[in-house]
Amino acid sequence: MQQAIHQNPHLSMKLYKANIIFTREKDRFEVVENGYVGVENGRVVDVAASADAFGQQVEEVIDYGDRLLIPAMNDMHVHAGQYRNQGISMDMELLEWLNSYTFPEEAKFSDIHYARRMYSRFVHDLWRYGTMRTATFATTHLESTRLLMELFREAGMGALVGKVNMDRNSIDALLETVDEAKAANEALIAEWNDPDSLVRPILTPRFIPSCSSAMLRVCGEQAQKYQVPVQSHLSENLGEIALVRELEPESRFYGDAYDRYGLFGQTVGLGSDISGGHDMSIMRVMVYAIQVSKLYHQKYKDKRFLSLSEAFWIATKSAGSFFGRVGSFEPGYEFDALVIDDSDLKHGNYTLTQRLERFIYVGDDRHIAVRFCRGQEIPEPRILD
Amino acid sequence: MQQAIHQNPHLSMKLYKANIIFTREKDRFEVVENGYVGVENGRVVDVAASADAFGQQVEEVIDYGDRLLIPAMNDMHVHAGQYRNQGISMDMELLEWLNSYTFPEEAKFSDIHYARRMYSRFVHDLWRYGTMRTATFATTHLESTRLLMELFREAGMGALVGKVNMDRNSIDALLETVDEAKAANEALIAEWNDPDSLVRPILTPRFIPSCSSAMLRVCGEQAQKYQVPVQSHLSENLGEIALVRELEPESRFYGDAYDRYGLFGQTVGLGSDISGGHDMSIMRVMVYAIQVSKLYHQKYKDKRFLSLSEAFWIATKSAGSFFGRVGSFEPGYEFDALVIDDSDLKHGNYTLTQRLERFIYVGDDRHIAVRFCRGQEIPEPRILD
Repeated sequence: MQQAIHQNPHLSMKLYKANIIFTREKDRFEVVENGYVGVENGRVVDVAASADAFGQQVEEVIDYGDRLLIPAMNDMHVHAGQYRNQGISMDMELLEWLNSYTFPEEAKFSDIHYARRMYSRFVHDLWRYGTMRTATFATTHLESTRLLMELFREAGMGALVGKVNMDRNSIDALLETVDEAKAANEALIAEWNDPDSLVRPILTPRFIPSCSSAMLRVCGEQAQKYQVPVQSHLSENLGEIALVRELEPESRFYGDAYDRYGLFGQTVGLGSDISGGHDMSIMRVMVYAIQVSKLYHQKYKDKRFLSLSEAFWIATKSAGSFFGRVGSFEPGYEFDALVIDDSDLKHGNYTLTQRLERFIYVGDDRHIAVRFCRGQEIPEPRILD
Repeated sequence: MQQAIHQNPHLSMKLYKANIIFTREKDRFEVVENGYVGVENGRVVDVAASADAFGQQVEEVIDYGDRLLIPAMNDMHVHAGQYRNQGISMDMELLEWLNSYTFPEEAKFSDIHYARRMYSRFVHDLWRYGTMRTATFATTHLESTRLLMELFREAGMGALVGKVNMDRNSIDALLETVDEAKAANEALIAEWNDPDSLVRPILTPRFIPSCSSAMLRVCGEQAQKYQVPVQSHLSENLGEIALVRELEPESRFYGDAYDRYGLFGQTVGLGSDISGGHDMSIMRVMVYAIQVSKLYHQKYKDKRFLSLSEAFWIATKSAGSFFGRVGSFEPGYEFDALVIDDSDLKHGNYTLTQRLERFIYVGDDRHIAVRFCRGQEIPEPRILD
């Protein structure tokens, strides 16, 4: 018989030393030059200017020198099943675009081999751009949705993965009945809805034009019954808004059409929206958000444009809250982090926040040296054919 | 005594084989799959589907396999003297931004060592992003402007380089008298204004707020006398437009204030505008131009948004016309070209124009395998400290 051994829970604490930048509040960055993040059991213990703050209970200190250490990115809206179409077919508005390019592409995911090829590249690219948590649409296909969840689990990256539900206004290959949708959702919930798991299901009624009232009602009931989150779309396009006004005449506005079925939320985040969007880098999506807010400011001078700390806070701490305590280095937050090696961008005399700004505006995935999700260093995921 | 040798002028013709894409007209791409570009004395002889079209007079065939071959990029507006500030200080509008961030940075270029450090990186980055012709602002400093011109010449890349002229509304370190500006402009014109040279001077009255009537008049006279091109700024900001209305009350509108001094042109191109802009890639600037045109289309539904071929035509053939016959593969055009290796973007079944579209929207400098300017392959320029 084995003897019980007293374990000091603090023996597993690691310290990561670097120039630490994150946000608590949206109005400013927290900056600790040559500071330490203590991490234990996947969570931040604290951030401090000195290793002494963590006492004698440190197992290891990993020194990243002059590099930056920031929270990892969260992509709150992306379509894994449109990965192939990234950067093409930008010439149509939403409804026409769906029928011409998007539904035909998504129909290919009935083929599990095609799904493996595309989804492994999709997960790889998220990793490449430092996106450690993702809320993603798969397609209507149950098997390939499962495969995508397995690929995330294998990679060690966090994801809410949605099997898409739709029962109207699409091509036959993608339509399902409400009963079929209900059963498939329940199967995924039964298999995957462990609250501690990094990879979990998310209910995904595509959008009002694709979902009958019966479909929306089932999704709302499942969300309530199983406490599963929900993702969808709204108000992307004037033609779509007009269509929803026809389809849901009792609703006062588009958002209300979801709210009536218990399908409306609060958290604000940023998403790449591949393949309606073309750029998988959430750093660049921050820049686009700031740029669009500046155009809005030109029109409405009393509306401020987004500052960099606000955009960063939205992309990290605000979006991260959808996954738990994620997106900051405050005590108790899961340690999702990126080590940024910006050596080749440091030709001037820059402050630490200017270095972060330059990484976001000028840098790319080459500057991401190390990625962590829930305290684990995440190696490059496999690309499969 | 040497004997005269009959030289066959066609012995120097090279053929470049690849998937060739360029624009003649803005409405469509010219695409030749596995085609040939014949190049002689730095200029395109023709594009053909078969090598036979070029007869027996070919010296060499260089085969780029399945890669794309496209015209190189032209950056029509960029500030070499603001290279250090790329991607920072995005929080102010124009006039305040100039005084707080930009003028103090430009003042550093009185130091030729600082200029060497920054300008060598600037030229290197243009190369990196496939920009083979550039219309650039230096600073008011004559010596560092000369250095920038030498760096372009050494690199083998085309540039119109402007010593900035300004005699009002800036910091003392950057102001000059009209006589000083006139003499410096004439020195650069005398040294560099060879019509065959890849690197030439361009007259650069910064903008109306920085230039008195006397300064504008001198620039207009020099442009006329020496047939030197001109670059400047206009209408970037509402505060600036209001200021110009005060400063030039006789002008009917901002453009007219230049036109009255013979300083207004016609060609349309795209520019990165570092460091007002943050992105040196003209591929991405095409994307931004398309995106902004889509916002404009949302407001004015009768105005079409830019198609990809239009944006490409503007960035290559239209902008290139400012440098001569540059920016297309039509006969007689200088061979400025990029070989694009998009192997890692080719996971789907894409057409050649979709491959180009993906390179522009999703790709980056890593996909540019070879660069040509005026028929010469351009090696990576040196970074100096």
